[in-house]
Amino acid sequence: MKSAATTLPSNITRANGTLRHLLTLEDLPRATLESLLDDAERFVRPLSSPPARTNSLAGVTVANLFTEPSTRTRVSFELAARRLGADVVNLEVQLSSRTKGESMLDTIFTLQACHVDVFVIRDSEVGVLRLVANNVEPHVSVLSAGEAHLSHPTQGLLDMLTIRHHKPNFEKLGVAIVGDIRHSRVARSAWIALRTLGVTDIRIVAPAALMPDADQFSGCQRVESIEAGIAGVDVVMMLRIQKERMQSAAVPDAEDYFSEYGLSAARLACAKPDAIVMHPQPMNRGIEISSEVADGPQSVIREQVSNGVAVRMAVLETIVAGR
Amino acid sequence: MKSAATTLPSNITRANGTLRHLLTLEDLPRATLESLLDDAERFVRPLSSPPARTNSLAGVTVANLFTEPSTRTRVSFELAARRLGADVVNLEVQLSSRTKGESMLDTIFTLQACHVDVFVIRDSEVGVLRLVANNVEPHVSVLSAGEAHLSHPTQGLLDMLTIRHHKPNFEKLGVAIVGDIRHSRVARSAWIALRTLGVTDIRIVAPAALMPDADQFSGCQRVESIEAGIAGVDVVMMLRIQKERMQSAAVPDAEDYFSEYGLSAARLACAKPDAIVMHPQPMNRGIEISSEVADGPQSVIREQVSNGVAVRMAVLETIVAGR
Amino acid sequence: MKSAATTLPSNITRANGTLRHLLTLEDLPRATLESLLDDAERFVRPLSSPPARTNSLAGVTVANLFTEPSTRTRVSFELAARRLGADVVNLEVQLSSRTKGESMLDTIFTLQACHVDVFVIRDSEVGVLRLVANNVEPHVSVLSAGEAHLSHPTQGLLDMLTIRHHKPNFEKLGVAIVGDIRHSRVARSAWIALRTLGVTDIRIVAPAALMPDADQFSGCQRVESIEAGIAGVDVVMMLRIQKERMQSAAVPDAEDYFSEYGLSAARLACAKPDAIVMHPQPMNRGIEISSEVADGPQSVIREQVSNGVAVRMAVLETIVAGR
Repeated sequence: MKSAATTLPSNITRANGTLRHLLTLEDLPRATLESLLDDAERFVRPLSSPPARTNSLAGVTVANLFTEPSTRTRVSFELAARRLGADVVNLEVQLSSRTKGESMLDTIFTLQACHVDVFVIRDSEVGVLRLVANNVEPHVSVLSAGEAHLSHPTQGLLDMLTIRHHKPNFEKLGVAIVGDIRHSRVARSAWIALRTLGVTDIRIVAPAALMPDADQFSGCQRVESIEAGIAGVDVVMMLRIQKERMQSAAVPDAEDYFSEYGLSAARLACAKPDAIVMHPQPMNRGIEISSEVADGPQSVIREQVSNGVAVRMAVLETIVAGR
Repeated sequence: MKSAATTLPSNITRANGTLRHLLTLEDLPRATLESLLDDAERFVRPLSSPPARTNSLAGVTVANLFTEPSTRTRVSFELAARRLGADVVNLEVQLSSRTKGESMLDTIFTLQACHVDVFVIRDSEVGVLRLVANNVEPHVSVLSAGEAHLSHPTQGLLDMLTIRHHKPNFEKLGVAIVGDIRHSRVARSAWIALRTLGVTDIRIVAPAALMPDADQFSGCQRVESIEAGIAGVDVVMMLRIQKERMQSAAVPDAEDYFSEYGLSAARLACAKPDAIVMHPQPMNRGIEISSEVADGPQSVIREQVSNGVAVRMAVLETIVAGR
Repeated sequence: MKSAATTLPSNITRANGTLRHLLTLEDLPRATLESLLDDAERFVRPLSSPPARTNSLAGVTVANLFTEPSTRTRVSFELAARRLGADVVNLEVQLSSRTKGESMLDTIFTLQACHVDVFVIRDSEVGVLRLVANNVEPHVSVLSAGEAHLSHPTQGLLDMLTIRHHKPNFEKLGVAIVGDIRHSRVARSAWIALRTLGVTDIRIVAPAALMPDADQFSGCQRVESIEAGIAGVDVVMMLRIQKERMQSAAVPDAEDYFSEYGLSAARLACAKPDAIVMHPQPMNRGIEISSEVADGPQSVIREQVSNGVAVRMAVLETIVAGR
């Protein structure tokens, strides 16, 4: 199964064909992606059961290196690594943007010299993660925890694991991604993963100002009305809207945004009756989604979080196992 | 012994009568409170000996979730949980006060979905902890590390453990609580615990502006003069004064506060000769208490800290054992 | 070998002659210093091998207490302690400078009462570490992670370990320390260690305004020109320059500083052909050192970092073993 990985670009795989870094889902063949989902499945446990634990990362040191704060994502990665038996250190570093690349590399070299084996990195700028991956020692792996507006691969994987659990037949799905597509790494990673898994009906739903440039999200249908956008879909993926984006979207305040793009129960009725509702969190309740929907029977939002830890365990185990 | 807990309100106990959450000492029957003190006693060790350790929380994940910074209290809870074998994650989160309840619940649901079993929460607003306790899954427990001006139950327990060690006969004690009673969760939890254990002579000593409203601290004697307040008592519990409170107390500066309400050695002579002196820390030396007293032979302040870890171990073990 | 320690001042050693605190390298006899280097050597591992691990600090609690932020140094100490099996807690505390000593002591007493055995402390003021060491319980040790401009003993040790690896014959070495000597604890600890190990040709190289007072760095040659300063040396130790210091050095901007005091490849040619280049990090590339040199074949900067973890393991093990 892992042999499919031999077709990956060499900066992501090792000479032996195993997955080394995970910076994006872009070049990941379907077999590799599905293999990661299968691996993750083994780590999923019901909420009331103890979490899955192994010792497969015993002796491995993982550094969570976040240059933008995100406590929840950091904890998800931290618990994933520790439940595999790894040593984990957390760092929140502010790097001057003028010398970002250099400072990041020097920080990485310092940690690498302390025998850190895996870097989990979140960064707000395009390219810094790739720069790190291209410069670390051969035994070191880099795992993206979010890169600018570009990529959030473990979020993409956990979204796919969640969808697969409810709607295993990807080829026949209709999926709507709704909100600030333009600035969303969550949307980009979901779009790539959905295409890789064979989804053909993908719609991006946003006000014109929050639509991505025309050369992006190829193969997606662009819809400006949320009702039309989610009509008949199986999956509604809501995105978080930043307050500062609402004005550029020509919606002056939260109430206006909700009335134009928020997912209310009434609107959700446009989707299939058994459609599932997703959100990457944290939610702006009453802005992009109503509490009735967020906490309602079609919501799988908390399941996404659980799947997040499972997916991160699978990815960590996979990239370390191939060494 | 634990059967006494069957009289607790159902939102604190489980169907089997065991303690599930600890948000306040208010509804805790005397037998339950004493049982927790007995449990804590088993974890007390002399300073120069290794700390007590068990494996009773192996496999349990504890999240320390503080919305107001308190490094020392966080470390006390962290060490307590780790010395019981738990996995511990620390989070300091800033939640917008406008959407505090919602944001807190979403954060909690996220962590709960990551298989966090116990939440240790400090929050500056009344009611958020209760909201969390009312909404978590049945296998999850909530433990207050301080709620607004209202409640600090493990502080109340550690204070009782400390008093009991020196003055086991609670019915005959005279106790003075001195300082900013009005805004103090430490004072409220101490008052409740003292009453539960049968203390009848409790005095709250403060300038008029820092006295609580008339309907609060029932059964306490209110005294504005510190000399009169501590006259003949067995226990003097000093509170921390915030600088911003001094003016409202009509004392313009630190020196004035000390001369009117500070515990000097001369003043301490008003209490019984073997009276003990307590303080929840951090102390403003020279403001509410002189260094001579804080470090003197009647001070049990450092003993309080040691007892704090023991009490937190006892509470954590108790709420997890009942699952 | 450890018997040499019996000549240490009593506030650093225990009655049995073993090393208890490490606050400075000043009073450390050569045999003790060399013994620490030998111990550290045992913990050095190639980058691609797993790090050294022991269980010699099992049951010991180490607190990293930093009053000035330094993520990298904190991680180095954290990994060192954890790889010896210790429990580690991290605290970043802001202490009001007016009551610094008192607040620090109360924080220490609190942690000590929580059964913390070893304090790793970084502080910006002279004397606070000594105050702590003089006041903790007999079973407790204090380890400096940097004190004001005065002392950074583990940095001094890791620098010596690095030099010894490449140039074992200290008596015959020429060493230049270049940059903001005046404000540098790194320079002071290096100078003391170099003298202890028998180096006679030590040069401090800086603009007049960044030279230390005349009564400091005795036995060093003072040179204002970098070319003259590094001429024929075996070791070039570069220091980090703070931007705010450049003006007092009469160099208005980064480019000017580099042209006057930066280590370029051209300048490095003034040193011996096999001279090694060191830097305590973080580097200002293009200001005090060019990237060509920092990443060049003579640079041992990353080796310094690896040696840092090994040295911290050795010191932690030594101070705990003597109890």
